[in-house]
Amino acid sequence: MARFLKTKKEEVGLSPEAFKLRGEKKSDAVLLRIIDFDPQKLEEYIVEEINNIENCNKTNSVTWFNIDGIHDEKIMTEISSTFELEPMILSDVMNPHARPKIHEYDNCIYLSLKMLQYDEVMNYISSENLVIIIKENVLISFQERKGDVFEPVRERIRKNKKTIRTSRVDYLAFSLIDVVLDNYKYIISEIGTKIESLEVDLLQNPEVSVLEQINSYKKEIIYLSKSIKPSKEIISELLKMESEYLSDSIYIHLQELQNNIHQSIESIESYREILSDQLHIYHTTISSKLNDTMKFLTVFSVVFIPLTFIAGIYGTNFDFIPELHYKYSYFIMLGIMLLIAILMISYFKKKKWF
Amino acid sequence: MARFLKTKKEEVGLSPEAFKLRGEKKSDAVLLRIIDFDPQKLEEYIVEEINNIENCNKTNSVTWFNIDGIHDEKIMTEISSTFELEPMILSDVMNPHARPKIHEYDNCIYLSLKMLQYDEVMNYISSENLVIIIKENVLISFQERKGDVFEPVRERIRKNKKTIRTSRVDYLAFSLIDVVLDNYKYIISEIGTKIESLEVDLLQNPEVSVLEQINSYKKEIIYLSKSIKPSKEIISELLKMESEYLSDSIYIHLQELQNNIHQSIESIESYREILSDQLHIYHTTISSKLNDTMKFLTVFSVVFIPLTFIAGIYGTNFDFIPELHYKYSYFIMLGIMLLIAILMISYFKKKKWF
Amino acid sequence: MARFLKTKKEEVGLSPEAFKLRGEKKSDAVLLRIIDFDPQKLEEYIVEEINNIENCNKTNSVTWFNIDGIHDEKIMTEISSTFELEPMILSDVMNPHARPKIHEYDNCIYLSLKMLQYDEVMNYISSENLVIIIKENVLISFQERKGDVFEPVRERIRKNKKTIRTSRVDYLAFSLIDVVLDNYKYIISEIGTKIESLEVDLLQNPEVSVLEQINSYKKEIIYLSKSIKPSKEIISELLKMESEYLSDSIYIHLQELQNNIHQSIESIESYREILSDQLHIYHTTISSKLNDTMKFLTVFSVVFIPLTFIAGIYGTNFDFIPELHYKYSYFIMLGIMLLIAILMISYFKKKKWF
Amino acid sequence: MARFLKTKKEEVGLSPEAFKLRGEKKSDAVLLRIIDFDPQKLEEYIVEEINNIENCNKTNSVTWFNIDGIHDEKIMTEISSTFELEPMILSDVMNPHARPKIHEYDNCIYLSLKMLQYDEVMNYISSENLVIIIKENVLISFQERKGDVFEPVRERIRKNKKTIRTSRVDYLAFSLIDVVLDNYKYIISEIGTKIESLEVDLLQNPEVSVLEQINSYKKEIIYLSKSIKPSKEIISELLKMESEYLSDSIYIHLQELQNNIHQSIESIESYREILSDQLHIYHTTISSKLNDTMKFLTVFSVVFIPLTFIAGIYGTNFDFIPELHYKYSYFIMLGIMLLIAILMISYFKKKKWF
Amino acid sequence: MARFLKTKKEEVGLSPEAFKLRGEKKSDAVLLRIIDFDPQKLEEYIVEEINNIENCNKTNSVTWFNIDGIHDEKIMTEISSTFELEPMILSDVMNPHARPKIHEYDNCIYLSLKMLQYDEVMNYISSENLVIIIKENVLISFQERKGDVFEPVRERIRKNKKTIRTSRVDYLAFSLIDVVLDNYKYIISEIGTKIESLEVDLLQNPEVSVLEQINSYKKEIIYLSKSIKPSKEIISELLKMESEYLSDSIYIHLQELQNNIHQSIESIESYREILSDQLHIYHTTISSKLNDTMKFLTVFSVVFIPLTFIAGIYGTNFDFIPELHYKYSYFIMLGIMLLIAILMISYFKKKKWF
Repeated sequence: MARFLKTKKEEVGLSPEAFKLRGEKKSDAVLLRIIDFDPQKLEEYIVEEINNIENCNKTNSVTWFNIDGIHDEKIMTEISSTFELEPMILSDVMNPHARPKIHEYDNCIYLSLKMLQYDEVMNYISSENLVIIIKENVLISFQERKGDVFEPVRERIRKNKKTIRTSRVDYLAFSLIDVVLDNYKYIISEIGTKIESLEVDLLQNPEVSVLEQINSYKKEIIYLSKSIKPSKEIISELLKMESEYLSDSIYIHLQELQNNIHQSIESIESYREILSDQLHIYHTTISSKLNDTMKFLTVFSVVFIPLTFIAGIYGTNFDFIPELHYKYSYFIMLGIMLLIAILMISYFKKKKWF
Repeated sequence: MARFLKTKKEEVGLSPEAFKLRGEKKSDAVLLRIIDFDPQKLEEYIVEEINNIENCNKTNSVTWFNIDGIHDEKIMTEISSTFELEPMILSDVMNPHARPKIHEYDNCIYLSLKMLQYDEVMNYISSENLVIIIKENVLISFQERKGDVFEPVRERIRKNKKTIRTSRVDYLAFSLIDVVLDNYKYIISEIGTKIESLEVDLLQNPEVSVLEQINSYKKEIIYLSKSIKPSKEIISELLKMESEYLSDSIYIHLQELQNNIHQSIESIESYREILSDQLHIYHTTISSKLNDTMKFLTVFSVVFIPLTFIAGIYGTNFDFIPELHYKYSYFIMLGIMLLIAILMISYFKKKKWF
Repeated sequence: MARFLKTKKEEVGLSPEAFKLRGEKKSDAVLLRIIDFDPQKLEEYIVEEINNIENCNKTNSVTWFNIDGIHDEKIMTEISSTFELEPMILSDVMNPHARPKIHEYDNCIYLSLKMLQYDEVMNYISSENLVIIIKENVLISFQERKGDVFEPVRERIRKNKKTIRTSRVDYLAFSLIDVVLDNYKYIISEIGTKIESLEVDLLQNPEVSVLEQINSYKKEIIYLSKSIKPSKEIISELLKMESEYLSDSIYIHLQELQNNIHQSIESIESYREILSDQLHIYHTTISSKLNDTMKFLTVFSVVFIPLTFIAGIYGTNFDFIPELHYKYSYFIMLGIMLLIAILMISYFKKKKWF
Repeated sequence: MARFLKTKKEEVGLSPEAFKLRGEKKSDAVLLRIIDFDPQKLEEYIVEEINNIENCNKTNSVTWFNIDGIHDEKIMTEISSTFELEPMILSDVMNPHARPKIHEYDNCIYLSLKMLQYDEVMNYISSENLVIIIKENVLISFQERKGDVFEPVRERIRKNKKTIRTSRVDYLAFSLIDVVLDNYKYIISEIGTKIESLEVDLLQNPEVSVLEQINSYKKEIIYLSKSIKPSKEIISELLKMESEYLSDSIYIHLQELQNNIHQSIESIESYREILSDQLHIYHTTISSKLNDTMKFLTVFSVVFIPLTFIAGIYGTNFDFIPELHYKYSYFIMLGIMLLIAILMISYFKKKKWF
Repeated sequence: MARFLKTKKEEVGLSPEAFKLRGEKKSDAVLLRIIDFDPQKLEEYIVEEINNIENCNKTNSVTWFNIDGIHDEKIMTEISSTFELEPMILSDVMNPHARPKIHEYDNCIYLSLKMLQYDEVMNYISSENLVIIIKENVLISFQERKGDVFEPVRERIRKNKKTIRTSRVDYLAFSLIDVVLDNYKYIISEIGTKIESLEVDLLQNPEVSVLEQINSYKKEIIYLSKSIKPSKEIISELLKMESEYLSDSIYIHLQELQNNIHQSIESIESYREILSDQLHIYHTTISSKLNDTMKFLTVFSVVFIPLTFIAGIYGTNFDFIPELHYKYSYFIMLGIMLLIAILMISYFKKKKWF
């Protein structure tokens, strides 16, 4: 299916409130990890049954519900009613191909981002929707697949890092987004290293494999660009939002995020240009090599063609060819041939043809 | 006629109120489908004669008039007077090549969009104007041709889906626009799948048919872009409009539409870039193949040219060529030829020419 | 002279109030057509002497002065004083190469647009300045050359079309601009048809004449773009203007104009892209053909080169070449040659070289 | 030195108040021309010694100090103190490579523009800074080199043209800027004529000299664009400025300037595109010619190769070649050769190869 | 590692307050230079131990702390507490790959810029973060490496230049930024000189080394652009900032900086275009040379091919070839060959093939 926009026939005209997964069906069990913390205490569980969530919801501490897997419609309905989320929100969560989006609802902030993964061997970036819902004291995050991308944040919570444990839910949200954005930078950095290392082969050794690589990096860069750019809008919206769920102290961190996004996008633009240039250079190198090949062929042919012609003349069987009968004419012919060859070669040397 | 802008000589200087079809004449009968619903009841008719519309217009329930065919000037006049529409509106409806447009009149909102259809076999996108007129409790939609594109919406109305039956006319309008926009995404997704599948042939097998396909996709993507981009303005205008015909609750849905349009346009841009790259890659691959061909010819010619020359020398008929008379000179010549060939081939091997 | 900007040495430093034609001098008589109308009456004259204008100016009905020819400095001065126009206005009228412009003076609105004419045979667009001056009850229009482009508007006035006869001067101005803008669309549509019809030759038959056509359309499209784009600003300015000369009811028509301009510009952009693509495709097709030519030459040469070499060997005159004396060696040689040819051809077949 | 940005090592870190010429040193005497006028009187002097300026400064009439030469640090200091200019202003005047700039100081408006000169023979545009300082009743203009570019303005003052003699200093400033901007248009028009005349050679006669010309025009157009674009900002700033030195009546003239700048920039953009297209067309024409050359070579070689091969076969010295001994075999061979040649040529004719 | 974005795996998810160097570790000692000045006095020290800073901080004069080296976490902590800086600030300082940034904190303005260094021999631009922290009477600057780039400013302070010694901390900050920005211009000017000097070789002598140079300049220009562009935002932000640390008199200097940045960016854009054009020209010149090579080969081959064929015919061993036995037929053959050659050569002369 198309990688840049995945919309199936049967999704056309679907109601915006329908709880229906708009992606590939999966059969893995949904995994719910809960971390509940305040400066003093920290509790971490993995919940098997979704029906005992309700209790956690009532604490005064910050509670982070991390849900891996969005394909189970029953669980979604349960989450929706437990947290009093509007049906449209969960319908959005279940559409993994949706564009990143932010909206302030009456009782929460909804925010989604693309989370990227880079397979270095195949040079393929895959994306996944990350949804973060910010409520009073509660943060709910949805991932499509199981993953440990938020492990550094969990680690920082566990190790009782001052800031994260004493802050409100908005700082936790910032930390999660920060991880996603740092990951963008890391991927760009990785792919960039590869792109820059193409340079050597480009001019010396322009083989089709180099062309294949340029082409493949170009596609990944376009995909990166398309996945990352909407995040800029998301962060800008967040910065302009005057929500009760965002404390004043968070804005400086959001500005930091914005700066990171800018840097990512600028780097992507730089690499895009570099790849375009590389393609041009490749093409021009090929033309240059073609010219060299032609020159070689030309020089070679052009030196031998008249010599062969002379030999041909004295291979004719006319009864009366006076030159044939002088004793040294064979050697004279060889000498003349040598002379012609030397003259031509020095002419080409002068013209810098080889 | 030109596909991207169709204006005939006789349309220059036409009065903006003239009821005259500015497109191809058609002779099909105009089809009028009426759906009248409120949470409790649902009535559906297909009207043959336009003069019994007037009654439907007076109900308190939501009434959706769907008119397939815009070429009958008499019917248009009748509709115009029944719904008290300004003459300019119907004049606009009858111009199927008009750019999408939105305007708030005194007694209605007028809105038009391009509805697209993709012929996968011919790889050809055709467009049709969809006009939606939103009045108090009444929605009138005009399509150029008969079509069942709104069937999913009708289905949702019939199956008594909660939201659509309890909402006002604005939600119905949103649902219709949503279908059109989902259809954009579906078409982009289809054409995108085809574009992405070109990749393999591009590098391995760059035949003219691949070039024809790239060219044809490029044109369709430009057409898509031109047809879809104005919709962005339409939705933005709708979002900024503070009309009595739009309830507060509709804005979140309109934002959803805007997000969809953004995603469509971004995907189109991505595919446009990919196609541009593909054209470059194709061209470069051709150059690369040409270089390979030349190398092959060069290697071959260059190895045989001196050998043929040597044979030519000993084919001359000079009386005195001493080499001719030694017993093994023929074999010595063959040996020397072999040696020259081996030397040249190993030289080319070193230069990586084959 | 340069087509895109025509400024002569002697025009540098000219006073902005100078009544001096900044274009080619012409000697045709200036033609003044006056139409004076209100809902009841309609008078039309062609005036030979400019000095009897003054009377017409005093009526309460709408009076449209249409002046064909801007080169007569004496007449210009007279018009200027009759209608109490500032000297700068007439100085602007007499500069046919000026950029389209709009300005609200104390006693009138000044507005100029490029009026285009397309010579289909030569594929050449020529432009002319149209100046419209809107005063209370009076509209003055200046054209460089005699033309009947406004005939449709005159026809609508004559045939007593309701709207135009009952409206004020602003509606007349709108009608004139509408004709100009419809004409843009018509020209784009004509040139577009031609561009689209290039496609077939492009891939099958890439001759230099196709290249010439692409080049020529490209230039005309750039010229179109440069001539039409300023109109967008003009209409936008007009929409923002809160002048006594513009009634409220005119704004919806101006929006229509703006929509038309947008459509024209978008179509131009589409054709510009299509032409760019066509140039690329042409170039790539040429490369592809070149590769085919080379393959053909290569296959042919490469098959015969070794055969000719073999023949050459047995053409040598060595005393002792044992093969020469076996009875069937000639036929064996022919057989070997055939074998070599078959092997090579099947090798090229496998490589898909022909 | 670099043409597009000239900054020397020793200029890095220079104080913004330093009176030091940041350009090439010159040793010409500085020329000061003073024109003092009001509607009644006009005085014109050329001043040798700068110390008698002070008197002129006190009149009520408009006084225009035109200074040709900015390299004399002593004179600069004197001017600075006579007119009470801030040190930063003169420091700016003495930096001829500075970007055009406008600033409203407490006692003057400072404004600088690039003044261009086009050497048609060398196709080279050189630029010079023009600084205009507007004070109450006094205008000071600085030029790098002696020049008569403002002669038309002086002429208009001398000939007692109504407007310029009755206006204030702002109108004089406008007239000077107008000359500079008209000169831009004149240069674009000149270079444009040359660009447009390239077309013919481009398709028929694509020699390297055409390529050199395209390249050279491209560079000049980039230089033009870089020099002219900042003027747009300058004029816009001037229009937004609410300074006591600018009378209300000047704004309509400034709008005229803005329109001129727009036209210049649009024309430059058009020519830039045309040049880009020309480069593409040139390249494509070359490819097309290459293909023609190859076809010719191919047709020729391919016709003779088999013929030569046949001759080679019957040149072999086998004892037993039956064909050699039939009486007419030589003529039969010639006939067969002719037949092969005709067949091949007609095949190539069919393939449209020549 | 990637040059345009350097982010390591282990930096993903790092807390924004962590004091951890995000770059290459270095082991050089950190160098702290303090300059303390007011109009009367000037003191300069180099501090070995960081703990005696505290005293300097209390003076009323302007104190500039310049710290070369950011890798020592202990020293950073000490600076942080001495100047009461928020932890986030120092965390930013220690991230040398961060994007330039500006932020107004409660007790200071934080501002970072890229400081560039150009290695002319290798044609490589390296960048370094410069951080400037503006407090009441105190300016702290951080550089990654030891450098003497601010020596001109120190020199101006020492030599008691009026302005810098009588101004507040903001003027010192401006002077430092000015040096950095002047340095941008100097580097662009240097690299520009090199780019412009490529022109000659481009058309006459298009060797691969030229291509390598174009490629290398392109990359440096992209790097320059990416490094310089954010500075524009920084200066704009500074101009909009209404901070107590910025006096009114500084704004005119900041505008100067902005003008400088604009000039730099415009020059970069010009060079970028010029390089793009150069690449195109190079490619086209190669194609043109290829065509010349082919023409030469073609002319040569095509002249000799029929001659060799004729010789081949009379080399056949048919018993009965009447021409062989006429006395002058050998000379007649030579004559005919000469004739053919002359005819062909004059044909090619006419076609302008050599």
